[in-house]
Amino acid sequence: MAVKEQDVKTNGSNGYRVIGTRPIRHDGTDKVTGRAVFGADVQMAGLLSGAILRSPHAHARILSIDTSAAEAYPGVYAVVTGQDMPDPGDRVESLGEGGASNLRYFSNNVLAKDKVVYHMHAVAAVAATTRHIAEEAIKLIKVEYEPLAPVLNLQEAMKEDATILLDEIRTDEFGKKGDKPSNIAGHFRHELGDIEAGFAEADVILEREFFASPVHQGYIEPHSATAVWRADDKIEIWTSTQGAFSVRDQTAALLNVPVADIKVTPTEIGGGFGGKTVVYLPPVAALLSKKAGGRPVKLTMTRTAVIGATGPNSGSHITIKVGCKKDGRITAAQTSLIYEAGGFPGSPVGAATSTILAPYDIENVQIDGYDVLLNKPKAAAYRAPGATNAAAASEVVMDEMAEALGIDPLDFRLINAAKEGTRIATGKVFERIGMIETVETAKAHPHYSAPIESKSGNPVGRGVASGYWGNWGGQSSATANLNSDGTINLVEGSTDIGGTRTSLAMQLAEALGLDAYDINPLVADTDSVGYNDVTGGSRTTYAGGIIVVKLAEKLVKEMSIHAADLWDVPVDAVKFDAGIFSHNGDSIGFKDLAKEIAKSSVSISVSDSVHPKRFGPGFATHIVDVEVDPETGKVTILRYTAVQDVGKAIHPAYVEGQIQGGSVQGIGWALNEEYVYDEEGHLRNSSLLDYRMPTALDLPMIEAVMVEVPCPNHPYGVRGVGEVPIVPPPAAIANAIYQAVGVRMNTLPMSPVRLTQALMEKNA
Amino acid sequence: MAVKEQDVKTNGSNGYRVIGTRPIRHDGTDKVTGRAVFGADVQMAGLLSGAILRSPHAHARILSIDTSAAEAYPGVYAVVTGQDMPDPGDRVESLGEGGASNLRYFSNNVLAKDKVVYHMHAVAAVAATTRHIAEEAIKLIKVEYEPLAPVLNLQEAMKEDATILLDEIRTDEFGKKGDKPSNIAGHFRHELGDIEAGFAEADVILEREFFASPVHQGYIEPHSATAVWRADDKIEIWTSTQGAFSVRDQTAALLNVPVADIKVTPTEIGGGFGGKTVVYLPPVAALLSKKAGGRPVKLTMTRTAVIGATGPNSGSHITIKVGCKKDGRITAAQTSLIYEAGGFPGSPVGAATSTILAPYDIENVQIDGYDVLLNKPKAAAYRAPGATNAAAASEVVMDEMAEALGIDPLDFRLINAAKEGTRIATGKVFERIGMIETVETAKAHPHYSAPIESKSGNPVGRGVASGYWGNWGGQSSATANLNSDGTINLVEGSTDIGGTRTSLAMQLAEALGLDAYDINPLVADTDSVGYNDVTGGSRTTYAGGIIVVKLAEKLVKEMSIHAADLWDVPVDAVKFDAGIFSHNGDSIGFKDLAKEIAKSSVSISVSDSVHPKRFGPGFATHIVDVEVDPETGKVTILRYTAVQDVGKAIHPAYVEGQIQGGSVQGIGWALNEEYVYDEEGHLRNSSLLDYRMPTALDLPMIEAVMVEVPCPNHPYGVRGVGEVPIVPPPAAIANAIYQAVGVRMNTLPMSPVRLTQALMEKNA
Repeated sequence: MAVKEQDVKTNGSNGYRVIGTRPIRHDGTDKVTGRAVFGADVQMAGLLSGAILRSPHAHARILSIDTSAAEAYPGVYAVVTGQDMPDPGDRVESLGEGGASNLRYFSNNVLAKDKVVYHMHAVAAVAATTRHIAEEAIKLIKVEYEPLAPVLNLQEAMKEDATILLDEIRTDEFGKKGDKPSNIAGHFRHELGDIEAGFAEADVILEREFFASPVHQGYIEPHSATAVWRADDKIEIWTSTQGAFSVRDQTAALLNVPVADIKVTPTEIGGGFGGKTVVYLPPVAALLSKKAGGRPVKLTMTRTAVIGATGPNSGSHITIKVGCKKDGRITAAQTSLIYEAGGFPGSPVGAATSTILAPYDIENVQIDGYDVLLNKPKAAAYRAPGATNAAAASEVVMDEMAEALGIDPLDFRLINAAKEGTRIATGKVFERIGMIETVETAKAHPHYSAPIESKSGNPVGRGVASGYWGNWGGQSSATANLNSDGTINLVEGSTDIGGTRTSLAMQLAEALGLDAYDINPLVADTDSVGYNDVTGGSRTTYAGGIIVVKLAEKLVKEMSIHAADLWDVPVDAVKFDAGIFSHNGDSIGFKDLAKEIAKSSVSISVSDSVHPKRFGPGFATHIVDVEVDPETGKVTILRYTAVQDVGKAIHPAYVEGQIQGGSVQGIGWALNEEYVYDEEGHLRNSSLLDYRMPTALDLPMIEAVMVEVPCPNHPYGVRGVGEVPIVPPPAAIANAIYQAVGVRMNTLPMSPVRLTQALMEKNA
Repeated sequence: MAVKEQDVKTNGSNGYRVIGTRPIRHDGTDKVTGRAVFGADVQMAGLLSGAILRSPHAHARILSIDTSAAEAYPGVYAVVTGQDMPDPGDRVESLGEGGASNLRYFSNNVLAKDKVVYHMHAVAAVAATTRHIAEEAIKLIKVEYEPLAPVLNLQEAMKEDATILLDEIRTDEFGKKGDKPSNIAGHFRHELGDIEAGFAEADVILEREFFASPVHQGYIEPHSATAVWRADDKIEIWTSTQGAFSVRDQTAALLNVPVADIKVTPTEIGGGFGGKTVVYLPPVAALLSKKAGGRPVKLTMTRTAVIGATGPNSGSHITIKVGCKKDGRITAAQTSLIYEAGGFPGSPVGAATSTILAPYDIENVQIDGYDVLLNKPKAAAYRAPGATNAAAASEVVMDEMAEALGIDPLDFRLINAAKEGTRIATGKVFERIGMIETVETAKAHPHYSAPIESKSGNPVGRGVASGYWGNWGGQSSATANLNSDGTINLVEGSTDIGGTRTSLAMQLAEALGLDAYDINPLVADTDSVGYNDVTGGSRTTYAGGIIVVKLAEKLVKEMSIHAADLWDVPVDAVKFDAGIFSHNGDSIGFKDLAKEIAKSSVSISVSDSVHPKRFGPGFATHIVDVEVDPETGKVTILRYTAVQDVGKAIHPAYVEGQIQGGSVQGIGWALNEEYVYDEEGHLRNSSLLDYRMPTALDLPMIEAVMVEVPCPNHPYGVRGVGEVPIVPPPAAIANAIYQAVGVRMNTLPMSPVRLTQALMEKNA
């Protein structure tokens, strides 16, 4: 893999010892030997198993629930319904990424109370001695429903006479507060410059419309939570999550108990991608445990429940209008993003609006975002939430505009690329960023000039697209305990999804002049470490790096006192560099000094917390070659190159893995993945057989090309790398399909049936 | 219970809000509902069970071990012997209290290599699918022994032509390094003043001789350890221990692996009393796991193994000579303490010599200590290690001396009592101590002047004795994480034996103006918290209190920055007192400020370590009434009052519990407990039926009287309280027996058979 080193600023030198190497991950052995404990692996004495009853209707009022037969069933210990969830009253809590800010809606999503608003909405739960008994027992729960008309697409949902999901939401047609019930749960606008004047300046104006189906995050590990509600009202939870503290805080808010009364132990996680930032099971498992007299209760979702009632990313309807001068300079862009919130408010449309035109320096911009309710599962974050739908619109229009102006699509992007000082529509002004570098690197890459090799003689095409994600800082806390041999136990609180035990250990090792394996990283429970935001938004290696460098400084400061004692000099006279403490002629290595300190029976333990408010936005430019079978509409990916500004790759193999994984998810979204509903709002493809994600057999090797434009706000220049790679693929593939067969696809996924239809329309 | 408040110095006030109250322990619910996980409760997938083969000989050479039949037995995964323990070479490690400093002996105690030196010495171990299979398989291990003459008492062991246990120990008759093999593994002397001159001044001189049998710590929970040796050579251990870090460090030294490669998770502990400070099982479980391909292995001792091969306290032979003026003033004291080390060096004779005359201010003192090998299990620490045997000698002589001089025994102690400024034979000079206060309080207590009520008309008597333990500081590290609601997660590293989760939480709550339940204390594993010494020596509430007060100061300092921001004043202008941050007219409570801080998405997490080198010595004076059945020699305890200087009782109920528990153990030691060996050195009473510990049915209520003379080195005046109460009982009971029937007992236990014999000799 090619690594292009830019002006790495940290320590004024390029010469890292640990950063940039590829050590085996600290948790690797546990993972490959099957010792790692994932959510459903949690076992304990007297553990009960649960099952959840889910709605057969997409939209219905709950008239009554009779749980008596289930309660009487042999082996059943507890049955809970929405009535067992505490009334949130007027409590509104800020519950972080993924947590609905309206507690009532959040509670009703966990267990429906008066109404079900999507097919498979959770209605009741049972805990029993075995899962089989629990599954039998939920069949005995009698729910009387009054079915309502399902609202299944945005057009319907936004009609003035639409069937209303949540009566108390009163907005006018622009989403502003009003008197009439509406399914438009939110609307906002970003503006920059003078949009009318911008279009007036334009020589060419294009206006297009795009649609996307919801897609699921597709993590392989289903949700699982085990809870014990102890007799002293302390609650313990073991669960697979992106953020143990988010589970704690959300569960505390939903159950109306103090945060300190809940301890969450995060298990290993088999993928989350944004979908494991919000709780579904923990409060239910806890309530079941309470009713079951404090016995531990485990709830593990089926695959059908995962696909049907968690996630997904929003479906969307986006219109976009772009005006350009003949020289390629964009003068104005106007776009409206309507996102499916699902049954309760809260789609990622906010993030979508902040990303859609961000790769470009455009003077006049207007962006509207709409959050719209319909009878589908409540949307959750999915890798660069909302940005992929958005780029699948904007980057296709950019391609068409470049074609209209006769400019190479990468050159067109270079003409308009955002750079240091660019202000985007959200008001954000970029510091040093690498958009231009990704485009230049893509342009110079052999892929861009290589002939496209068809495997079967079918039409082939090449497409490009860029993508952006702002990344995130968030709160990180950690503790470092110095061992007697100079190794360090590093207590982290961010769950490790993409190898962050190692990426944090490497940064601490770099700062202290140690090896990666001298650091013993541990992901602790919520009682054992300070607050940490979720692993998401591409923040953990970023903020985690900042916190470990702070801990390194504290360790060095405390150890210097002992070095000063050794040499009988003032502590300020002790220098530390590259693992060596020194003063004039005296010097002692980090580990040797640690041993001296241990000999004098002194321990050193340091903790700290950070919340960086500035971070490093990430950009990517992807190149894809496709082959289209005009008979079947099947698209084959022939070659794929993903260029990304990663800031500084701490562990290049993990960064490549993120780029490859994100690209693959984007490819699945582009070509195959979608939620298929029937007219009654029943999800018809809630299995991994019918919901088709790409496998290794469907894909070529994804070439990850890392460009390193260091983030100025991080000691090692790190930018988040996990989100950006999912953004460009659908647009790049749409552009490549156009090059191959001459149709501009405007709906995701570009499945064989849609592509065949488009080809037939074109040929008609 | 009477609490006598002295001049409590801390904060210049007696007015504590939390300290001195009796909240229910934080871990109480877990304990009473059976959720708490003790050593043998550890379960995990694929867990193998182990069994240990133990020596049938008290003393023998191992000629060969054939494990082939055991290895071939169906269900067996691994067999290990002493040959599997790494050769320690010349490595000598300091392994803390209880850890043998000579690694070779320590290793050979864990698994015998060339020689067995006591009956039930561990020789080999098996891991198999079930415990029953493991127990069958150890019978198939063929060990060829060359039996040697067992050495079973100190007189024999110290003879010039004694059978030698460890050929490489070469000492002369004074224990100094010599050329001849010897069983005297160590000898040292403390001296003060001029012993000859002191005796020359005396009007009365008494010289007496005392013997004591080994006794076991008697914890109800047997040793248990579960270990996984992972494929990346990281080792995880779950065990019931007084110190997870000691287990880690000792196991690392014995297995010759880095400390950071071992993670020890302490389980709850069902008693330790010094006996769970040294490893027996963890290295063996780890080696079995390694041989078993990384499967987890659990070893749990039988009761017979616990009594036969762990602990015990040393048997001893003590001579003591005391000289006094007629006015009661002691002019000189000379004593020789010979302690049974067991099969390897390392009895608690060192601690014994530093305690034996410490309650008294004596000008001329000579104390000799001898550490002597014989074929009994290697001695371990037991609550005030060595001090009880010592007081059972010195305090009986003091009683006899008071009688000889016609002085009340408590008055005699007041005449000679150690006080602030007293220098004892070890060289230690006391700071503020409470010896005098305990004697004065005992004298004033109604018990001391009440008539003795016989239950059956048998002879009755009252005895008193004092006791001393120096206490300990040791290393403590902890982390405090501030929650968004102002509660605190307190991460501790000292295992909680006597309620230290609560006693530390209370001190942190006191310092911060919070309630005890606002603190959520957690005992963490060795990866998750800084280094902590064992819970032992009476140090945890002491050093733990110092560390939490330091953490409180750090929290207040960090929170003050935010208060200063709120009010836009310099941080130095913010005051903190009793839970309130203030500046002029402005003020905000701790929890409210925490909520403000959380709202601004800032986390606060603080860690620190302490190693106090000065601490508060503890003194006690006990009063006991006994009734003696002259026919059977049975002694019944009629009334028992234990007065103790506790410094400051953080949680009075726990302090009382320590005083009561220690007194009861001392009573068992005095009257019943002993190791009974046959001529071949086989232990004949290794069950709780034959090794007789007192039960609630054998005892009256023990009245605990707390005197509070604050320790000047602790922010709240805390002294260790756990050790002292075991020291006086045997002497007090011996003195009471003398008052009842006129015989001075000089051997522990003063069992019915010994007392009957003494009465017969007296009457003969």
